[in-house]
Amino acid sequence: MSGNTLGTLFRVTNFGESHGPAIGCVIDGCPPGMDLSEADIQGDLDRRRPGTSKFVTQRNEPDTVEILSGVYEGKTTGTPICLLIRNTDQRSKDYSEIARSFRPGHADYTYWQKFGIRDPRGGGRSSARLTAPTVAAGAVAKKWLAQKFGTTFRGCMVQIGEIAIPFEGWEHVPNNPFFAPVADVSALEDYMGALRKRGDSCGARLRVTASGMPVGLGEPLYDRLDADIAHAMMGLNAVKGVEIGAGFASVADFGSTHGDSLTPEGFAANKAGGVLGGISTGQDLEVQIAIKPTSSILVPRESIDITGASTEVITKGRHDPCVGIRATPIAEALLALVVMDHALRHRAQCGDVVTDTPDIAARSRG
Amino acid sequence: MSGNTLGTLFRVTNFGESHGPAIGCVIDGCPPGMDLSEADIQGDLDRRRPGTSKFVTQRNEPDTVEILSGVYEGKTTGTPICLLIRNTDQRSKDYSEIARSFRPGHADYTYWQKFGIRDPRGGGRSSARLTAPTVAAGAVAKKWLAQKFGTTFRGCMVQIGEIAIPFEGWEHVPNNPFFAPVADVSALEDYMGALRKRGDSCGARLRVTASGMPVGLGEPLYDRLDADIAHAMMGLNAVKGVEIGAGFASVADFGSTHGDSLTPEGFAANKAGGVLGGISTGQDLEVQIAIKPTSSILVPRESIDITGASTEVITKGRHDPCVGIRATPIAEALLALVVMDHALRHRAQCGDVVTDTPDIAARSRG
Amino acid sequence: MSGNTLGTLFRVTNFGESHGPAIGCVIDGCPPGMDLSEADIQGDLDRRRPGTSKFVTQRNEPDTVEILSGVYEGKTTGTPICLLIRNTDQRSKDYSEIARSFRPGHADYTYWQKFGIRDPRGGGRSSARLTAPTVAAGAVAKKWLAQKFGTTFRGCMVQIGEIAIPFEGWEHVPNNPFFAPVADVSALEDYMGALRKRGDSCGARLRVTASGMPVGLGEPLYDRLDADIAHAMMGLNAVKGVEIGAGFASVADFGSTHGDSLTPEGFAANKAGGVLGGISTGQDLEVQIAIKPTSSILVPRESIDITGASTEVITKGRHDPCVGIRATPIAEALLALVVMDHALRHRAQCGDVVTDTPDIAARSRG
Amino acid sequence: MSGNTLGTLFRVTNFGESHGPAIGCVIDGCPPGMDLSEADIQGDLDRRRPGTSKFVTQRNEPDTVEILSGVYEGKTTGTPICLLIRNTDQRSKDYSEIARSFRPGHADYTYWQKFGIRDPRGGGRSSARLTAPTVAAGAVAKKWLAQKFGTTFRGCMVQIGEIAIPFEGWEHVPNNPFFAPVADVSALEDYMGALRKRGDSCGARLRVTASGMPVGLGEPLYDRLDADIAHAMMGLNAVKGVEIGAGFASVADFGSTHGDSLTPEGFAANKAGGVLGGISTGQDLEVQIAIKPTSSILVPRESIDITGASTEVITKGRHDPCVGIRATPIAEALLALVVMDHALRHRAQCGDVVTDTPDIAARSRG
Repeated sequence: MSGNTLGTLFRVTNFGESHGPAIGCVIDGCPPGMDLSEADIQGDLDRRRPGTSKFVTQRNEPDTVEILSGVYEGKTTGTPICLLIRNTDQRSKDYSEIARSFRPGHADYTYWQKFGIRDPRGGGRSSARLTAPTVAAGAVAKKWLAQKFGTTFRGCMVQIGEIAIPFEGWEHVPNNPFFAPVADVSALEDYMGALRKRGDSCGARLRVTASGMPVGLGEPLYDRLDADIAHAMMGLNAVKGVEIGAGFASVADFGSTHGDSLTPEGFAANKAGGVLGGISTGQDLEVQIAIKPTSSILVPRESIDITGASTEVITKGRHDPCVGIRATPIAEALLALVVMDHALRHRAQCGDVVTDTPDIAARSRG
Repeated sequence: MSGNTLGTLFRVTNFGESHGPAIGCVIDGCPPGMDLSEADIQGDLDRRRPGTSKFVTQRNEPDTVEILSGVYEGKTTGTPICLLIRNTDQRSKDYSEIARSFRPGHADYTYWQKFGIRDPRGGGRSSARLTAPTVAAGAVAKKWLAQKFGTTFRGCMVQIGEIAIPFEGWEHVPNNPFFAPVADVSALEDYMGALRKRGDSCGARLRVTASGMPVGLGEPLYDRLDADIAHAMMGLNAVKGVEIGAGFASVADFGSTHGDSLTPEGFAANKAGGVLGGISTGQDLEVQIAIKPTSSILVPRESIDITGASTEVITKGRHDPCVGIRATPIAEALLALVVMDHALRHRAQCGDVVTDTPDIAARSRG
Repeated sequence: MSGNTLGTLFRVTNFGESHGPAIGCVIDGCPPGMDLSEADIQGDLDRRRPGTSKFVTQRNEPDTVEILSGVYEGKTTGTPICLLIRNTDQRSKDYSEIARSFRPGHADYTYWQKFGIRDPRGGGRSSARLTAPTVAAGAVAKKWLAQKFGTTFRGCMVQIGEIAIPFEGWEHVPNNPFFAPVADVSALEDYMGALRKRGDSCGARLRVTASGMPVGLGEPLYDRLDADIAHAMMGLNAVKGVEIGAGFASVADFGSTHGDSLTPEGFAANKAGGVLGGISTGQDLEVQIAIKPTSSILVPRESIDITGASTEVITKGRHDPCVGIRATPIAEALLALVVMDHALRHRAQCGDVVTDTPDIAARSRG
Repeated sequence: MSGNTLGTLFRVTNFGESHGPAIGCVIDGCPPGMDLSEADIQGDLDRRRPGTSKFVTQRNEPDTVEILSGVYEGKTTGTPICLLIRNTDQRSKDYSEIARSFRPGHADYTYWQKFGIRDPRGGGRSSARLTAPTVAAGAVAKKWLAQKFGTTFRGCMVQIGEIAIPFEGWEHVPNNPFFAPVADVSALEDYMGALRKRGDSCGARLRVTASGMPVGLGEPLYDRLDADIAHAMMGLNAVKGVEIGAGFASVADFGSTHGDSLTPEGFAANKAGGVLGGISTGQDLEVQIAIKPTSSILVPRESIDITGASTEVITKGRHDPCVGIRATPIAEALLALVVMDHALRHRAQCGDVVTDTPDIAARSRG
């Protein structure tokens, strides 16, 4: 079954390959009447764009988005929004050798065994390049959520390889190529520089949050808000772990200290990460993800070819030494898409519900 | 939008409340012609059942499953299988007080704010009791996968509260009430005994695996196999973190040491946890989950009532001091349901695909 | 892929077989806070019930519905509503002979070829008995739509076999066993009596309507309101044709006389049947369906057995000489379920939309 | 909820507006390894293309399709196939007047009331132009079904306005602009010529068939093969009625004469139209649809403007005097898409099923 659609009511269907003519997505279900232009989307695409620092792939793609449908006189019409991004910097080269062997840690082998065919040019469909349409769609969701609820999304790097990064403030994030919330990133630069020199790669831990959340989003069983967040995040290339709120630290905690107390002025803490019983509390959503080291590295490695014979693989080409670096805007987009979808799901079933109980999270925001 | 269905082709729709007349599920999409009786399902239900040791809730439910449809003369017919479990030990008592305040760390507040109404009896829909139908459905998936591919599912406790549990062997798991893979569980008994005495609860870390996996299951983008595993696991009550393979340990690893090499005899390692590019490699699926401490504890806690006024909450009733203890068969069932769904999804799109490349994971299994 | 679920946001998953222990459905997505008891559902079930006149099957089923979940203290909670109907009048007899041959015009052959197994008792899953859960779910939808919009659903017989039935008034429909909108049904009784005597069956044409419709329900492309109505109706046993509004009579009409003019006081006509561009106009939905003659008849017919050899089939047992007779409440239920689903779909995407243009259909209703 | 996707496993997501920069679709779920190029698709697009005779709209669109993704070295890869068709003959003119009033019989009023905004240029999203992507996707399905099962799809005009067209032979269909199965179409030309002169439009009745069908496709309840055909056909612009097999003629038939007898050499007749119990028999699928007269006509008509005030509407621009004329390839495509989807659904659940019973429909095909 096809799996290239994210969401149930705000549906994003992603298409394209790394070295095909274009990549893009179709958003179906966007509410009508919202101002929308390419400029609303380009900003996040630029944050994710390759070639912006020496710590990311040197492929030079402007990632210029074109709105092909669903917008009339600058407003969404409620019909599908097709967003197209032309590929411009596909290098023409001979892929026949690459196509005959499998890079360890990469999707080469599994695509081949599944489909019996594989587009080897730049990783084809498995390339991280396919996150660009996700980011573009996320920008549309962000805009609607900001206007409707005042919800905002932010993300930052928490750890890169072996280096934990303290949180100094959100204001630092846009000022360095690592999305790091610190003023001084020289240690990160040195670390990544050394890594690049030896042709290796490393992992990363990211944090993404949503602030100004409405209370009540999420379905109790199976399609919980946290479940759908986990689905979206683990569906991102190279992600191997997802935490909500206290995450794995919850294991060694106690019920008496873990449950965030409710007070008339708000919650006393947020170990739950903004979700209880699969439904948003109105507190900030707090998500962390683990990203594995890029599989495409210059260091030679043992592998097999398509006949099953032993071979050695070196990945040349242009690659990110840490795919986690550019993942921050992607993770934000994914979080926004999940929240957007649940906002519409909530409205469908519970659009009439009003209680006399105060929204204490909103109250604590003032 | 409704969210009580898990899966796209092997669809499990769950219904019921903790203290209603019955709980159950409808499985739609089960392949026809498989031998199936209640006995195939009851075993896993018994492993999850409450009241089996002093370390779990003392509610006494036989959890006897009845097949209401979809089976004729002992074989599945391809039509929906309704599995019904009557509730028998609902205590009649006055819930009016409970209904007016919100237990911290519990779904009370969010259900109320979402739906404007909430069944407070035993947690209603948010009770862990609703995992029984999931376990029942998982047993059906397990049986089909075992017959079709020889795939088997196992799980065990890795850590309970502050105590890490070394892996001594799968054979120990059924011999103790903790699903612990160790011969001697006296330390765990002491730890949990002390916890119970002070009316508190703790978290747990579990591991679940699938062995004998077919290669090629999973969709490249969004609905990846690992994404759907994360969705299923994070959708389980109290889960706050999910890891596939090396999980968060990937962050501090390097590309040169992380990517599992391919050899003609099999993969050299399994840091990927059996999934590359969202598609199964044929290696064992390796999943770990973090479960938070039970929110329902005897220790009094600060909270609010439905008017927003400050109050104190003590949860009496019968509860699990560590919900993680009974979660092992549930996590196994969820993993089986996800694999089952992707097995059918794979067959739909790629049923014809054959490659000349050997299935190296199968080869390494001998 | 499983297909036993109707609807996308108000989802009805149907289960059961004619002679199994029970039939029923799970409704997922019902808005919370609506008063609901078995009494709200039983009325429509009684209208569809077998054994109520000599013109329908003599199987005696009380069709008593039990609400197993989703309702607390008489109100829907927003969680899945499981409706259970026990089968009580399954005759025990030897089905081995029936199981070896295929009744012409019946699902026997296709079920067998599809699933390789078939429950032959009373038609198993293909029995019209499985429309009872649909009717039960429809009653829930009807109640919500009546309270929310004042929408009401009605149906009647338009033609039975060769006899066209003039429309005299809705008030006659409940007063005869044919759901005929006429005062005098003696001609119908004679016709059906003669048919029964010779062991034959006939077809029927039904009309169903929805009045008090909101304007704006339906999706422009593919999942249009009329498309989903056609899907629901053609999905009903024995239906071979569906018309919306003028239906097949539109073919010989002209644009100049066909398009219903808009006036400040309402539409001048309703040839469109309440749908334009796949979206409701607010006028009455007008639907007609063709139901083929019952395949289970006493007249002997030529067929084959499971080895492919020639054989003769006579269907004994208890059957409806015209399945169309009991189909009126079913068609109403299906229409209500489609409208309900689109009401929630509309609210999800367009919940905020308000225009200054009057709802002219509502205006014409006064 | 979004509704612009057709199919569950072979999913076609349609986007675009009549006068936007482009229209197109994304096909998700296409089996991998099939040869595919633009040439496979262009043929059907050309059959549907506007401007090919004086009896259809004079808009001159080459409808050249571009494959943007999902194909590598001329073969499908199993990843999403994006098909793009640029709009080239959008006339720039002032739409402000049109935007303020509603054409009777058209989607103008309902779009406006639903979305609160509407793209009035050429009908925007409600234009029949949006059937082009459907036709393109259908061509992909046709190709796979032909290769896999030998299934072929054909359609023809059965009635245009008041003129019934006898069936003389499929070979005539491509030789006249009406898709009429007759050698001499001068009567049709005269009829349509007179209609055009007075600025009016008429309806049409079409027939579409699938030959070489596999037995066993379709789901028993709700998502029956015939139900999904009805959904697809009624979802096409201007369709007001759908019949399967004998359709409305079944009403006046008897069980003794209606049920198609089974014989060792095949079915004795095909009143069922190739579907029993919602599942394909292997006989030809026989479908007929009623198409209403085009709403956009030169004859002035009464209507209202967006304030609700009375006005008169004349539709200038370029329009089809009978939208049914170009609908034949569209209806074929829709039928192919439904069959394709059910072929994959069948394989997912019942891929292993084999019976000893002969496929009698296949046998009768020789």
